[in-house]
Amino acid sequence: MATSKPSIPKGTRDFGPLQSARRSYIIEIIKKNFGKYGFNQIETPAMEQLSVLTGKYGDEGDQLLFKILNSGDYLKKTSVEDYTKGSPHMLNQISEKGLRYDLTVPFARFVVQNQHDITFPFKRFQIQPVWRADRPQKGRYREFYQCDADIVGSDSLWNEAELTLLIHDVYRELKYDGFVLKINHRELLNELARYVGLAGQEMPFCITIDKLDKIGSDKVQDELLALGANDTKLRSVIDLFEQSADNTTKIELFKKLIGENKGTTELLAYFDYLTRTGTKNLKIDLDLSLARGLTYYTGIIFEVKATDVQIGSITGGGRYDNLTGVFGLEGISGVGISFGLDRIYDVLEEKNLFPESLTKSADVLIAHFDQECFLHGIGLLNQLRSAGIRAEIFPDAAKIKKQFNYADKNAIPYVLVVGTEEIDKKEYTFKNMRDGNQEMLSIESVVARLESKI
Amino acid sequence: MATSKPSIPKGTRDFGPLQSARRSYIIEIIKKNFGKYGFNQIETPAMEQLSVLTGKYGDEGDQLLFKILNSGDYLKKTSVEDYTKGSPHMLNQISEKGLRYDLTVPFARFVVQNQHDITFPFKRFQIQPVWRADRPQKGRYREFYQCDADIVGSDSLWNEAELTLLIHDVYRELKYDGFVLKINHRELLNELARYVGLAGQEMPFCITIDKLDKIGSDKVQDELLALGANDTKLRSVIDLFEQSADNTTKIELFKKLIGENKGTTELLAYFDYLTRTGTKNLKIDLDLSLARGLTYYTGIIFEVKATDVQIGSITGGGRYDNLTGVFGLEGISGVGISFGLDRIYDVLEEKNLFPESLTKSADVLIAHFDQECFLHGIGLLNQLRSAGIRAEIFPDAAKIKKQFNYADKNAIPYVLVVGTEEIDKKEYTFKNMRDGNQEMLSIESVVARLESKI
Repeated sequence: MATSKPSIPKGTRDFGPLQSARRSYIIEIIKKNFGKYGFNQIETPAMEQLSVLTGKYGDEGDQLLFKILNSGDYLKKTSVEDYTKGSPHMLNQISEKGLRYDLTVPFARFVVQNQHDITFPFKRFQIQPVWRADRPQKGRYREFYQCDADIVGSDSLWNEAELTLLIHDVYRELKYDGFVLKINHRELLNELARYVGLAGQEMPFCITIDKLDKIGSDKVQDELLALGANDTKLRSVIDLFEQSADNTTKIELFKKLIGENKGTTELLAYFDYLTRTGTKNLKIDLDLSLARGLTYYTGIIFEVKATDVQIGSITGGGRYDNLTGVFGLEGISGVGISFGLDRIYDVLEEKNLFPESLTKSADVLIAHFDQECFLHGIGLLNQLRSAGIRAEIFPDAAKIKKQFNYADKNAIPYVLVVGTEEIDKKEYTFKNMRDGNQEMLSIESVVARLESKI
Repeated sequence: MATSKPSIPKGTRDFGPLQSARRSYIIEIIKKNFGKYGFNQIETPAMEQLSVLTGKYGDEGDQLLFKILNSGDYLKKTSVEDYTKGSPHMLNQISEKGLRYDLTVPFARFVVQNQHDITFPFKRFQIQPVWRADRPQKGRYREFYQCDADIVGSDSLWNEAELTLLIHDVYRELKYDGFVLKINHRELLNELARYVGLAGQEMPFCITIDKLDKIGSDKVQDELLALGANDTKLRSVIDLFEQSADNTTKIELFKKLIGENKGTTELLAYFDYLTRTGTKNLKIDLDLSLARGLTYYTGIIFEVKATDVQIGSITGGGRYDNLTGVFGLEGISGVGISFGLDRIYDVLEEKNLFPESLTKSADVLIAHFDQECFLHGIGLLNQLRSAGIRAEIFPDAAKIKKQFNYADKNAIPYVLVVGTEEIDKKEYTFKNMRDGNQEMLSIESVVARLESKI
């Protein structure tokens, strides 16, 4: 009976063997480096109470939360009046839980709930999927992974320096060096806003500046003028943004225009820490126009961009003053970064940086002509595995061609063929799947050959 | 302002650093062994279409699916008439998606959707959370992980043998040897059902037999008699179940009572394969009363039980004939196993088998008295890290006691204290946190000391 092919919800994805192996490759490198820098993993449930999630991501965010219908007779406590009041009203009565929208709010909730058991500074990482009912489009999914590391309960700028080193280590290990780490300080932007006459409108100023890349300098100026910025002063600020100079010179130029402040002091201390670590070849670019849209940042902010691939930011983060205030716990400040798994995947794919043979299921496949050869093959398999070689035997009676095809599709580089003659001679056909070469070898020679390759 | 403490939905859990590290430890070992036996990972979305999930787990299962409310004005297409018809009726109109209930149905859906790209036999593993709106109780959660490996598109009993070896390798690597792998064959149970006069009622027979452990032999006999079983013959079957003998003798006893069949032949072939691998110390116990509740098994079935911990099965699986028939693709048979992460966790915890220091965030913490010492410490940190030592420096100005406490809570085994005097002498206090011993050492000696410990 023909039924219609099943499908998956729009905006979600299946990951087959190759994609899964590549995703694991990235995640393992990020995870290893999180561990190396002293972060410990936590995990939170996919579902959170809607009371925890709602109101944390703005009105638009609330719309984008996936809500879970209460179990059982979910309409039980509702009336026709509730129904006629419409969807938003009835929501509270039929749904109490939603899917995690990011990892920050669950982390804040975790810190508040476990505040008496946590030793501060608390360095945690979390690598889990999040869900957003966004309109799906290229590169935007309804289920995607975030890879976050945060240090909370510490004001030290050393944490910013450590996160900077961590970012470099991750991309070094991923063998990607086409990135630049843009940094800025929120206080610098605030000072610039006040300088152009937008005191009290620091946040709209930041949000507009954040669009420089997208809409260009002219339109940004127009928007800021509309907000009430001083034309001449705005020009000097845009000039400042467009200066190309080394990081220290940029800070000097800023000071010349505006003077010293908390931002310049902290940036200088941050650069000093990095210098003292003696780390070479840091790819840091102080970008005075870097704003990052999120409202909760208060200090140094980070953004990693790919310079050689058309894609947005691949890692971002910054310092915030008040992680847990919304849950009634004041004074928990911290700094964190988030790696974007999907975009990093796209960059590595475009730059051809994934290692080959990530999906190689074995080093060698044993192929066979009949049941007798198969049984003999089990003995050979055992010898190979005892020598630490990843070996498989084709499980079914099948044509040799099918067995070779299996090796090919599973990226198995060698096939050992067992035939009746081979059993008698105790020498087997050993085929290199890449170049097609084959030779007759004893099992001991096969082991030696494969050991030298692994 | 005091607000009420936030909470998580009932039946779900947060995992802190220790639990997360322990879960990762188990998952990594399972994952590594899946890879060693040639399984490739796939991942499927948390959300599936309700049309994919519904009707696959029985009526009770349908009730236990978490349903996701459609986005936006979810009531738009409904009327008051729909509302008054009640929850089950309205469900179809306000929800199209549900959370994954297990990994088998999504896998079947994946195979059908990708049937033209898959090379059979297809060996896949999948390690992801699943969700069930079950009543939460001790050991039963609404979100939990399954770790599944399946081979589909192969009838060979060699696959059963490989899964047997894989199970042994996983528990060996977890250092747990208190388990026994119980096996049986569904055909044996079917034959026994027919022998006692329950032809056509093989499935109820299996389901009743499955309760032997829980309700005992007397009650099982009562239930089977009520189904219409022959009293005398039933007694011989129960006698057979209670025989303690080696696996081959049990097969002989079965044959004596019932005769040969597909089940006995396959079991003998399976044991023969295992013997030919030369693997020693297999912990396999043919249990003729092992039934496993699930209806879709058709061949050899597996169940791993802990013999020294009060807990149900910790791994289970078996062969099935028709994975994808519900989605219109016939003839895809296979065999699979599933490791239960939560129960394995409980066993390892009870038997004290988790390695220590899984959460050790660093090998050494650098503590300091003031900013000058901190800056000096950064240089030392760099020397330690260059030597491959996992080192951290306490980021804030804080009392030494607080810094020691941080090392203690984060399982950091050594602390290097930097004071003004130490900077002058270039010798630092090096404290062993376990025994409390401390000595004055140069940074080179500290490196040498730590290198010898790692």
